Amino acid sequence: MNAEIISVGTELLLGHTVNTDTTIIARELSALGIDLLFSCTVGDNAERLRAALREALSRSDVVITTGGLGPTGDDLTKETIAEAAGVELVLHEESRQRIETYFKGRYCGENQYKQAMLPKGCTVFPNDAGTAPGCGLETDTGKVVIMLPGPPSEMELMLKRYAVPYLAQREQAVIVSRMVRVFGIGEGAAEEKIRDLTEGANPTAATYAKENEMFVRITAKAATEQEAAALCEPVVREVCVRLGEFVYGVDVESLEEVVVHGLQEKGLHLATAESCTGGLVAKRLTDVPGASEVFEMGAVTYSNDVKSMLLGVPEELFPAYGAVSEPVARAMAEGVRKKAGASLGLGITGLAGPGGGTPEKPVGLVYMALSDGTHTWVRRMDPPGRVKNRTWVRDRAAHYALDMVRRYLAGLPVEGHAV
Amino acid sequence: MNAEIISVGTELLLGHTVNTDTTIIARELSALGIDLLFSCTVGDNAERLRAALREALSRSDVVITTGGLGPTGDDLTKETIAEAAGVELVLHEESRQRIETYFKGRYCGENQYKQAMLPKGCTVFPNDAGTAPGCGLETDTGKVVIMLPGPPSEMELMLKRYAVPYLAQREQAVIVSRMVRVFGIGEGAAEEKIRDLTEGANPTAATYAKENEMFVRITAKAATEQEAAALCEPVVREVCVRLGEFVYGVDVESLEEVVVHGLQEKGLHLATAESCTGGLVAKRLTDVPGASEVFEMGAVTYSNDVKSMLLGVPEELFPAYGAVSEPVARAMAEGVRKKAGASLGLGITGLAGPGGGTPEKPVGLVYMALSDGTHTWVRRMDPPGRVKNRTWVRDRAAHYALDMVRRYLAGLPVEGHAV
Repeated sequence: MNAEIISVGTELLLGHTVNTDTTIIARELSALGIDLLFSCTVGDNAERLRAALREALSRSDVVITTGGLGPTGDDLTKETIAEAAGVELVLHEESRQRIETYFKGRYCGENQYKQAMLPKGCTVFPNDAGTAPGCGLETDTGKVVIMLPGPPSEMELMLKRYAVPYLAQREQAVIVSRMVRVFGIGEGAAEEKIRDLTEGANPTAATYAKENEMFVRITAKAATEQEAAALCEPVVREVCVRLGEFVYGVDVESLEEVVVHGLQEKGLHLATAESCTGGLVAKRLTDVPGASEVFEMGAVTYSNDVKSMLLGVPEELFPAYGAVSEPVARAMAEGVRKKAGASLGLGITGLAGPGGGTPEKPVGLVYMALSDGTHTWVRRMDPPGRVKNRTWVRDRAAHYALDMVRRYLAGLPVEGHAV
Repeated sequence: MNAEIISVGTELLLGHTVNTDTTIIARELSALGIDLLFSCTVGDNAERLRAALREALSRSDVVITTGGLGPTGDDLTKETIAEAAGVELVLHEESRQRIETYFKGRYCGENQYKQAMLPKGCTVFPNDAGTAPGCGLETDTGKVVIMLPGPPSEMELMLKRYAVPYLAQREQAVIVSRMVRVFGIGEGAAEEKIRDLTEGANPTAATYAKENEMFVRITAKAATEQEAAALCEPVVREVCVRLGEFVYGVDVESLEEVVVHGLQEKGLHLATAESCTGGLVAKRLTDVPGASEVFEMGAVTYSNDVKSMLLGVPEELFPAYGAVSEPVARAMAEGVRKKAGASLGLGITGLAGPGGGTPEKPVGLVYMALSDGTHTWVRRMDPPGRVKNRTWVRDRAAHYALDMVRRYLAGLPVEGHAV
């Protein structure tokens, strides 16, 4: 089966909005085993949408549109598709009621109800994050057109809750996806280790690179959810075995989530002292709801004076080793741990650039230390081969620092591989 | 003049990469006054690229491709376009030398030199951030095809340095763009104030929404850079007058950049004490190179104990007013200022959610205070009408807090409007 996507929206062609909808849909189609051969964007223009639709239906089994389902005169997608499919739009009472409820107590223009007019015979997809419902429509030539709203938060929810099951159901199948999150190994190296697993058809396994990390998505299709889950399970396990200690979690959102939940489970508290990352590690920890239970204090100590005053880093370390050094990272971790009365202290000092590098201490060099009161571990992050920017160095250092805590909590060697 | 974009890359159709190239090009075309009617994505497949190209050339004056210029066998864009245009690929000696220099001292496969083969008669665009050059090619029917690399960092640089001037030059024109950055007023309200200015053709003015802020881009086309700049100037000035104190800078990158540079100019130091933003303000300040000159200490004080221990917030404030209150924000700002020996202290306390809200203190309520030792100002940020998530609350609070410092430095009322 193959598919194509038509994104409808003049704002996309003016560059006002990045088209993330297409990426999100592309991933779901890939997981479903449906080939996406083509995607295009047209403005809010019935004639051009009609032309794109005609072409798409001539060559693809499934056509997915995003956008143009709203209340304004610009929103033409349903009208244009219904006309092309030779069906009329009819009022969908349940959708009308949902819109009424949505606006309860606030002004609701008559045009809002235009959104409840849907192609006759379609399968309606409720909009759980907004007002415009979507739908799936089978044409008399056996093709399928799926209409989704444009705003990504509405689109993504509707896609995953209703459109993907609708597509799977047409093949009398249920889809289950699992996510293996990985840090500390490149996408290329990881892919080499699991290449044979990514060649399967059911479940499919695919690697995706994210900034400074990657993930493997395993997706299976079966008659029931249980069967699909059972198909995934051995591949998930095998990916975890092959990627070993680099796997930081399965079906989790982020490294910081794993760290915060790990601290919660063990009843431990963490304190942070950051120089070059400037609060990024604290920010990431507190991105996780509930971080307050395990994270009471973070210090951003940019100057040497503040490192000594706040954390008790011995002043003589600076002339002897420099602020970017193993002894200073160590003293920061130990100092902040004591100051906060926490179980664990994390210290980070390095050169984020662009200025300040020397041949001995180049931009990109970062030391990080983790102390538990008994022992202090230090990791040294060397600059990459090619010069990267300040943001990249800081993001990478924050990742490596959080990964030390993750390793400590998991009982793995804290320093891990040379990084 | 109208244009369309063809993005080439199987990774886009698998959802591995978000297509930001199209958005960036769309903005430049819009600023140039060129209408983008259509954009599409095809995989690394010569046949489908050929079909898309044929269609694009049949209806558009300018066709811009991204991707497929690299060294591998998958990279087919130049070959396919040259064939369609009936020209051959020839070695471009300067590009060959650039590739040689790029790989100096490292292994360089023979296939790298494939990138120096370019359509005969084209205008070559150097790649200042990578290896694959791009080019502009005029077909014998007077259409223009522009080929750009896929990686956004390479594409954007080449587009702005070479492709935009190439397009402008064809109309014997030079383009100048100015950026007015705005915070504290919604895109809708801002647009209403400057609607008449956005209707001009030269210069054009357009509003763009960004997370929690917006910007206005003014672009003029003229025979010389001076003339184009002179056309922009009065519109930039008028936008600044109409949007008044909400304009935080012209041709700057971010609010934090304005704050860091403002502190540098005035020789002032800032210290931060964050509760609900958890280090986000410190992180944003230290995103700016040179922040170390003006920012020595940040504290992330999540628990009441640490607020008292580290910042000297009087313990009796917590039972009397609660941690999320004006007196605590005030004491945090004053306390961190004193502790760090800084000129200015910033304190932030609020409820980021999702849990912890009450009818009196709902999720989204944030107090922030700025102290200069003589006076302390407090802003109260109320939750928006519709519930937003934790990230949104934190980002917005960080914006408002940085905006207080910006206002202080600019001599504006620090508390500004009720927010």
